[in-house]
Amino acid sequence: MIDAAIISTGDELVTGRTTDTNATFIADRLMQIGVDVVGVMTVGDRPDRLRWVWTEACKLAHVVIATGGLGPTADDLTTETIGVLFGRELVIDEEVGERIRELFRLFNRPMPENNLKQALIPEGAVIVPNTLGTAPGYRMQVGTPDDPRHIVVLPGVPREMKPMLTETVLPWIAGLAGTGRVGHRTFQTFGISESGLDAALAGIPGEGRWQYRANFPEVSVRVTVRGDDIDARLEAFGREVYARAGQHIYGEGDTNMEAVVGGLLRERGLTVAFGESCTGGLVAHRLTNVSGSSSYFRGGINAYANGIKERLLGVPAALLEKHGAVSQEVAGAMAEGARRAIETDIAVGITGIAGPDGGTEEKPVGLVCFGMAAKDAPTVTRQYQLWGNREWVKLLASQIALDWVRRYVLGLPLLEIGRQGAAPKKPQQESVGPG
Amino acid sequence: MIDAAIISTGDELVTGRTTDTNATFIADRLMQIGVDVVGVMTVGDRPDRLRWVWTEACKLAHVVIATGGLGPTADDLTTETIGVLFGRELVIDEEVGERIRELFRLFNRPMPENNLKQALIPEGAVIVPNTLGTAPGYRMQVGTPDDPRHIVVLPGVPREMKPMLTETVLPWIAGLAGTGRVGHRTFQTFGISESGLDAALAGIPGEGRWQYRANFPEVSVRVTVRGDDIDARLEAFGREVYARAGQHIYGEGDTNMEAVVGGLLRERGLTVAFGESCTGGLVAHRLTNVSGSSSYFRGGINAYANGIKERLLGVPAALLEKHGAVSQEVAGAMAEGARRAIETDIAVGITGIAGPDGGTEEKPVGLVCFGMAAKDAPTVTRQYQLWGNREWVKLLASQIALDWVRRYVLGLPLLEIGRQGAAPKKPQQESVGPG
Repeated sequence: MIDAAIISTGDELVTGRTTDTNATFIADRLMQIGVDVVGVMTVGDRPDRLRWVWTEACKLAHVVIATGGLGPTADDLTTETIGVLFGRELVIDEEVGERIRELFRLFNRPMPENNLKQALIPEGAVIVPNTLGTAPGYRMQVGTPDDPRHIVVLPGVPREMKPMLTETVLPWIAGLAGTGRVGHRTFQTFGISESGLDAALAGIPGEGRWQYRANFPEVSVRVTVRGDDIDARLEAFGREVYARAGQHIYGEGDTNMEAVVGGLLRERGLTVAFGESCTGGLVAHRLTNVSGSSSYFRGGINAYANGIKERLLGVPAALLEKHGAVSQEVAGAMAEGARRAIETDIAVGITGIAGPDGGTEEKPVGLVCFGMAAKDAPTVTRQYQLWGNREWVKLLASQIALDWVRRYVLGLPLLEIGRQGAAPKKPQQESVGPG
Repeated sequence: MIDAAIISTGDELVTGRTTDTNATFIADRLMQIGVDVVGVMTVGDRPDRLRWVWTEACKLAHVVIATGGLGPTADDLTTETIGVLFGRELVIDEEVGERIRELFRLFNRPMPENNLKQALIPEGAVIVPNTLGTAPGYRMQVGTPDDPRHIVVLPGVPREMKPMLTETVLPWIAGLAGTGRVGHRTFQTFGISESGLDAALAGIPGEGRWQYRANFPEVSVRVTVRGDDIDARLEAFGREVYARAGQHIYGEGDTNMEAVVGGLLRERGLTVAFGESCTGGLVAHRLTNVSGSSSYFRGGINAYANGIKERLLGVPAALLEKHGAVSQEVAGAMAEGARRAIETDIAVGITGIAGPDGGTEEKPVGLVCFGMAAKDAPTVTRQYQLWGNREWVKLLASQIALDWVRRYVLGLPLLEIGRQGAAPKKPQQESVGPG
């Protein structure tokens, strides 16, 4: 079983300018293929610190993956340091040099000579191609024949590093580790807590590694299998996961709620609108983050003030007077009004108290009411007691609104959340929150 | 001059579950008081790796600041490791123990005995109080009298760690470092590039350390001074900064554009509305992230489809037909329509092509048109050629819309951006983008 260490270099990382997301990405992908990360080490662009970090990392683990310090400028010292430290000449890789020259020709710009520095590679290193930038990465074996170490050097730009890691480096490490074939499936869920999902999936038979990840307001679970019959085993796991937690699974792999809801609407030829009060445009913002959303999203109304709820959404003044702006009655009227104003198949109204001010004993901060109006269906309403700060209440409310649309389109029951653990503030309310 | 190393511990950090933002925060704050960070080291919750990381970190720097591993469970091993490694008995700190018991009494919950583990402190350590959680931090001197090392241990929960660092640890390190008084001012800018700002501020007389930080779509600059007359020198720097780049500075310190615009509107008793097309609700979302925004934000209209622009914003069909939905003419009509519909003092209309699809040679992806209507002022319109992906175009467009409101309220000229470097795609357009 081989293990790995990660090196991140760059002054921006040790001065607090930039958070190191490369290390997170690499650790996650190594985990996926069953390689343990012993440690992550970060230093600035200084020769002495680079020498120290490479020396220590090579003591620490079989494979060392480093990012950063491959650029053309004077403070890009990685290759130079490696050459000195491991006693390798640096040689120009003609193919890489030609590619760099070609890129500059392509963009019709003169090439400063220092760019060729990026074609200098330690003797004996194997190139890791970079299709998105000028600096390639490389890997090479160091250490002794009895105790070999494998070092991998990649650029620090995440957009370039990520495909280089997944397309070239990981398959090579998987081969090195002799882990055989590895496969995984990731299920994205909403409306169930991490511990609730864990309990629901406990005891699924078969050999797999289960990893849960809470990413507010969602929880994902990934199952990794290795060895024989990967596809059949993943399919069997999937059947069991859907049987136990199906209504909470909104998608698989790299996706999000707005993309899934958008896909469903487009597939069915449906349109949607939102009458937003406490979410203040967040639902529309999320939905329109998806390219092509104009085919199902025609518009929406952010009705913060009561007067706007009346005038643009046609909520009767008497209803506002009788039940208050934050009420299921008003949420239902907002949904009907948004559907009428935007002329859509479905509309959701959202009104609540995002906080930190504005709460009362009767209607505390975090109380959010939802209504949904749709053709050929009675308007439904519901309220949930959410918790967290203003940002979380807005985000969670927007997620519930999108999930209502998903459930309506799929014919699933209305969302039931937060049953496990968190006690509702009032018996008739749902309670839901982070964690 | 003392330097520092940062240790982050936790399995979640070496399995890719969590990105280490603690190290970024600590490095940034150490930088502010002039302490250099030599390196950041991250390991999971294993005794051998903890011993390794503490040993190496103490070789590396004068001060070692660590986060994580102070909780009550079996995988919280920091204090145990430190006790063994530095030959210190662990003793119960009675005051801390009593505080933990009291917290559980306060929340009316039985206390599992393992919680008292958090009151175990290495002999001779000085407590760093934690007002927001159960586990305190501590610091102590190790090493030899000739070559002392100072170690600081803090909880991994950012909400608890941050005030402990800033209120207790940093003043102590500043004293240790003998750096004397340190002061700084941070200016938040928009509409000028990092290099443009650097050029504008070049050569300001006086001794200070200038740090630029690009955080798309903004750039901030911080000046740090140490020694005597700190306040007077910071004031002199401030005068010079405003004289050279004043119209781009929207605020100082920890703030953001939506909070500044909200503050201005509230102060002047003005209301605002947005007619959003390509930003799809993002402007309203940002504005309503600010608590108390209901005093100046009554509502807004997201008009994606032409029909909605006509019906809800009163944009004449003929105007849409003649100039197209993405045009300055339509942006102006959207602003006027939003102002009429929501009955506000000011309104901004935004229409553009966020991409990646929908661009033409005439109107490429990233073209965004703005209009502003206000009482007692003619409607103004303008278009900018933005660049970046869909997310960036939306974000940058929302920032421009908010900045237009700021400039209107302050009587500043309309935004001129991206002049330096990036050539406009068409001579009559502004070009602006990241970096």
